[in-house]
Amino acid sequence: ADARIAVVPGDGIGREVTPAAVRVLDALAPDFAFVEADAGDAVLEATGDPLPEETVETVEGADATLFGAAGESAADVILPLRAAVGSYANVRPARAYPGVDALRPETDLVFVRENTEGVYAGIESEIAPGVTTLTRVVTEAASRRIAEFGFDYAERHGYDVTVAHKANVMRTTDGQFLDAVRAVADERGADHEEALMDALAMHLALSPEAYGVVVCPNLAGDVLSDLAAGLVGGLGLLPSANVGSDNALFEPVHGTAPDIAGEGVANPVAAILSAAMLLEHLDYDDEATRVRAAVEGVLEDGPRTPDLGGDATTEDVTTAVVDRLD
Amino acid sequence: ADARIAVVPGDGIGREVTPAAVRVLDALAPDFAFVEADAGDAVLEATGDPLPEETVETVEGADATLFGAAGESAADVILPLRAAVGSYANVRPARAYPGVDALRPETDLVFVRENTEGVYAGIESEIAPGVTTLTRVVTEAASRRIAEFGFDYAERHGYDVTVAHKANVMRTTDGQFLDAVRAVADERGADHEEALMDALAMHLALSPEAYGVVVCPNLAGDVLSDLAAGLVGGLGLLPSANVGSDNALFEPVHGTAPDIAGEGVANPVAAILSAAMLLEHLDYDDEATRVRAAVEGVLEDGPRTPDLGGDATTEDVTTAVVDRLD
Ligand SMILES: CC(C)[C@H](C(=O)O)[C@@H](O)C(=O)O
Ligand SMILES: CC(C)[C@H](C(=O)O)[C@@H](O)C(=O)O
Repeated sequence: ADARIAVVPGDGIGREVTPAAVRVLDALAPDFAFVEADAGDAVLEATGDPLPEETVETVEGADATLFGAAGESAADVILPLRAAVGSYANVRPARAYPGVDALRPETDLVFVRENTEGVYAGIESEIAPGVTTLTRVVTEAASRRIAEFGFDYAERHGYDVTVAHKANVMRTTDGQFLDAVRAVADERGADHEEALMDALAMHLALSPEAYGVVVCPNLAGDVLSDLAAGLVGGLGLLPSANVGSDNALFEPVHGTAPDIAGEGVANPVAAILSAAMLLEHLDYDDEATRVRAAVEGVLEDGPRTPDLGGDATTEDVTTAVVDRLD
Repeated sequence: ADARIAVVPGDGIGREVTPAAVRVLDALAPDFAFVEADAGDAVLEATGDPLPEETVETVEGADATLFGAAGESAADVILPLRAAVGSYANVRPARAYPGVDALRPETDLVFVRENTEGVYAGIESEIAPGVTTLTRVVTEAASRRIAEFGFDYAERHGYDVTVAHKANVMRTTDGQFLDAVRAVADERGADHEEALMDALAMHLALSPEAYGVVVCPNLAGDVLSDLAAGLVGGLGLLPSANVGSDNALFEPVHGTAPDIAGEGVANPVAAILSAAMLLEHLDYDDEATRVRAAVEGVLEDGPRTPDLGGDATTEDVTTAVVDRLD
């Protein structure tokens, strides 16, 4: 096999959309070996552990991982898996598609979210009864690395760069983040804009077309990318990549959607577009382009799942995508 | 005088919209004594200090303060002033008005933002070269106090309560926040919903009508309330109250708008609605209602400033509001 792909469907609709993404990869016929592994609430209930050691090993040993979604145990699954692939960059494109109802049809954003620190570094304690603290960590090294990644991505894909921060309040930590972005911009002779994350939340709602790549500290990226999902019509369309230096994990931004899980009507587009990001990451650029074109065609005039106002099944949409691959 | 009101216009359009709000208060004729005080970039440049001690004393000695906006020095002005009035609750209503173009015309939200701690407690340091930390603080006492305030407000104004948090990642600190809200809800036998702040950002964009009072940790409230401004058409309409146990400060959510400052065309509505919140706070309920009705009338069919697509001046709009007071 040319590449070994770990497949971790997880819980809920993760179990429906991940196979759909695998079907698309299969239809493209690169010689991938798929290795399935468990994670999430179901395996937690069965074994007491939401993330078995074998799963971590499978992910570590793979060239890339396709992840679905995890339920209540999400944080205990996805945060360690992101760490397992050594991911420092969480890439979340959020764009509107012709034919899909969107609050802001002109949205074409890519959040480049720092994926290792900020409040996620998470050293917490109850230092006295009823008094709790969390130590937020921001380093120059991680800030520079995500800035480099963001500028590279923007250059390659033709976007402007905005950096989100709250350095007027978090002067030292977000000040560090901002300084690192400025230094990288300077060294590269690249332009960038700076935006307070609160004001940016408003401006993204009012005029998303004014932004492209948004380089964010970890939590800011979490919140702003979900907001962007609201601008393009929901989470059913948003893929993401967790990129490390020699491994990566791809996942839809959506969760397990317990309300519709098991009904076969989950929208597979976010998972399929995550597979396209995986292809691009492994240098199957042509195949990635073919998947995206097929998805766009289906979104424009093909079958739709109920979240997009249609009554097609996950399988209908996946078949339609596969049929358009060429 | 029945009440002593400190007036701190600050910088930029703060100097235009604050006098407009004072004019409205004057026209209502409660016997208020207004005492003006300086803060912001201009006084920083003149004296080296953006917040002179006299200003703090004036604010501390007043029954309530009307604040405008501050420029670059905003954080050095508004955070100490919020502390000077002992504010623990930042109340930010965000609603759409008939006649005003809004992305989400069904928006009628009130953010009740914890105003003393979270990342704003702000103990930061560079613990090693290129390694910075911030200690986020969440206490049971402050969390309970904001929860009580939120439930009281919701009850009085007929809203449901949602609490925003990120307790799946910030387990101890936002866990503390969430536990306090749950305990208060329980003691009161009140209903509430819980929402992850990232998912909530999306849901507010997709269906704001599903929410009412949103009780938030400090930074979550900062970001989500600005997002809500985007849903109702911008910051020109959003007032806010910083409430303490025996003092309070009222301010438009917007900033100094340097691009239009000095032109006399700033939208005074956010400042005037902040004055309405001041009136309500001082138990001038009738007068507060009259101001709100007048503003709504003007927004529906009166003159508009350029931010709302009109060509009226600050003075035109203020006069129209004053003329409708009855
Ligand atoms: C489940 C949670 C830990 C996760 C995060 O906060 O990163 C999720 O919200 C996401 O954005 O993928
Ligand atoms: C100026 C800044 C410190 C302030 C805040 O973060 O609270 C502002 O964004 C606000 O929301 O009033």
